[in-house]
Amino acid sequence: MGLIISRLAEEIKPSATLSLKDEVGSLEKEYGFKILDLTAGQPDTGPTEDVLQALWEGGKLHKYGPVQGDPELRGILSEVINREIGVRYEPQDIAITVGVKSGIDILMKVLLEPGENAGIMAPFWVTYPEAVRLAHGIPCFVESDGALKPDPARLRKEVEDRNIKVLLYSSPSNPSGVVYTEDELEEIAKIVKEKSIWVISDEIYGACVFYGRKHRSILSIEGMRSNAILVDGPSKRFGVPGWRLGYVAGPREVIKALTKLQGHINSGASRPEQYAMRVAYTSEKARGATEHMRQRYERNADIFVNGLNQIYGISCIKPEGAFYAFPSIKKLFGAKYEFAGKEYPIKTSVDFRNFLLRKAQVAAVEGAPFGMEGYIRFSLATNEETIVNALGNIKGAVGELA
Amino acid sequence: MGLIISRLAEEIKPSATLSLKDEVGSLEKEYGFKILDLTAGQPDTGPTEDVLQALWEGGKLHKYGPVQGDPELRGILSEVINREIGVRYEPQDIAITVGVKSGIDILMKVLLEPGENAGIMAPFWVTYPEAVRLAHGIPCFVESDGALKPDPARLRKEVEDRNIKVLLYSSPSNPSGVVYTEDELEEIAKIVKEKSIWVISDEIYGACVFYGRKHRSILSIEGMRSNAILVDGPSKRFGVPGWRLGYVAGPREVIKALTKLQGHINSGASRPEQYAMRVAYTSEKARGATEHMRQRYERNADIFVNGLNQIYGISCIKPEGAFYAFPSIKKLFGAKYEFAGKEYPIKTSVDFRNFLLRKAQVAAVEGAPFGMEGYIRFSLATNEETIVNALGNIKGAVGELA
Repeated sequence: MGLIISRLAEEIKPSATLSLKDEVGSLEKEYGFKILDLTAGQPDTGPTEDVLQALWEGGKLHKYGPVQGDPELRGILSEVINREIGVRYEPQDIAITVGVKSGIDILMKVLLEPGENAGIMAPFWVTYPEAVRLAHGIPCFVESDGALKPDPARLRKEVEDRNIKVLLYSSPSNPSGVVYTEDELEEIAKIVKEKSIWVISDEIYGACVFYGRKHRSILSIEGMRSNAILVDGPSKRFGVPGWRLGYVAGPREVIKALTKLQGHINSGASRPEQYAMRVAYTSEKARGATEHMRQRYERNADIFVNGLNQIYGISCIKPEGAFYAFPSIKKLFGAKYEFAGKEYPIKTSVDFRNFLLRKAQVAAVEGAPFGMEGYIRFSLATNEETIVNALGNIKGAVGELA
Repeated sequence: MGLIISRLAEEIKPSATLSLKDEVGSLEKEYGFKILDLTAGQPDTGPTEDVLQALWEGGKLHKYGPVQGDPELRGILSEVINREIGVRYEPQDIAITVGVKSGIDILMKVLLEPGENAGIMAPFWVTYPEAVRLAHGIPCFVESDGALKPDPARLRKEVEDRNIKVLLYSSPSNPSGVVYTEDELEEIAKIVKEKSIWVISDEIYGACVFYGRKHRSILSIEGMRSNAILVDGPSKRFGVPGWRLGYVAGPREVIKALTKLQGHINSGASRPEQYAMRVAYTSEKARGATEHMRQRYERNADIFVNGLNQIYGISCIKPEGAFYAFPSIKKLFGAKYEFAGKEYPIKTSVDFRNFLLRKAQVAAVEGAPFGMEGYIRFSLATNEETIVNALGNIKGAVGELA
């Protein structure tokens, strides 16, 4: 008895980027380093003028709104989903949430009993396992094949062996940039249907797919209507992660339960932002800005990944979407370097991250919290100059590794 | 195994006002009623122009912000708390949340182990027990004395008998309008300290206190610094519940844990609104609007409660703050009335609510979900004309009760 924080609160891991921020801060302060930042989980763009103007107009919506979200926005999203994924979800089958995070957080409470298992395709977004734990569920990781692609045989085995109830993944994937093909989605859907489990498809990077490929969603596969749940939102597409908006589309009873819980958990997303999103999702200007961003990140990916693969010891699959490069740096494990008169070994992805900070002045996020020790995540959501300079620095630093 | 919603999602109660909305809708449609709405849990005012302008300027904050909330806003709130409550909480001891709801939701997960008991002073805001359940805790209700005031003897007994770990209350109280006196807070603080439990003080109505009384907070009582946690926000004070902002101030390790969880649950509140709140909490104009609102609601309370107490069978304590009247209507239980050719008995607060809708064309919320069957909640957050008309209608309808 007494004043103790709960075990849950003790166990939840802080966001992976926190210790990184501390390290960057101290290097910049102590050594006057100018670190090239390739850590951002967000675009370097922002909303178009018409969307910003709509935010101001939306300020008049200052009273409580419907917990499920603005009906007009849900109507627009119903059209967006139909156009982009090819399935009709009615406005009542869609709920607006406080970002994709809150959508997933509430979904876990709706779908999982405490103690039940959730399957997470590795590599994964760092918040998935914590969202499962916050619902007192148990995260089970499903390893990918050698090329960071989903491995249906392994998935089937995990679902059976561990009695998985909900499956979670993102495609395009954060952190790998892998985009699941139609065949791969069909394989996943088959297992989902056979085992009668839920699947949550995180498509937040759906508008950022490269090289003429098309974004495909598991929701469009026959029979998935009763099992699959979509989470998406405007944060990456329109450059507004600070506006805290997302949405969930799925079976009506799931959306109803999510809305009921949301009524007590947070009452739903901010109304001015919801109003502004009516404009964003229907604006030609905003659509043009998204496409321009996509093209820039595609070019960045091209330059950066080609460059990385010419460096001894680094091997990177070519990202097909999102805005990350996620190379293996395992071959460099065992190397050593000197910094400020001290020798450091590289044995983990955190060691490699610190090596890059100290010797290349490049900030990236270690692979471990994404479920892949031996890898590192670079964000390409920046300007080309930064990408080129970072590449040069990395090449130089790795070249000198003993 | 299979596609079933969790027990938790089944058990959580929908917001009390939903069935009411359905009833109002059908009466307006079928009978052409024009219902006088005294249900609003929000002011009838809105933000001042300067705050609205700041929302637009805040639109430029479209990237992720600090999960704990805007540092400048936390600095301002540190001053507000110091000025109004008389205790110094540093900016790092304050976190911005997605409304008070999300603050309480996350606090429950930080403070309670699954299966542990939380004490809730009755009558209570409908979300408290659901927030406890969402953390897999068990809500225990602590009855008030006859005048809806806290009853320290009963509180002590409940805390002992049920091994309560967290205590929750609001003062000024939603739904009763009761404002805890300094003596009452001292008594509660004594028990909290002696039993070494947490106490969450919901002071969202703190700027709306009547008749020259002063809002008092348990946080200002000696020794409470390590046990007490404040939740508050701009929703009622500045008329912006749709902007979804709140804040929590308390022991540093609690704020740290809350922030860590918030990083996975929703990443924090919208940044444009946080920016606008910098202005609201420092604007003379906004402060003037709050005071003007307070005066109007004080006058409404005066008129309405005096009028209610002249009606046979209705007895209402005089609210000292917030913007509700919460009369006992127990004496009218057993009465019957006719509507559309059918006879209806009044046996519950829902029956009485429906009676008012049908015979007085006044909408109010039944007492049961607030923990007080035999009571009904009227919101006074409207114009004086509506208050006067509603009173006349209620008088007329109750006068005709058999």
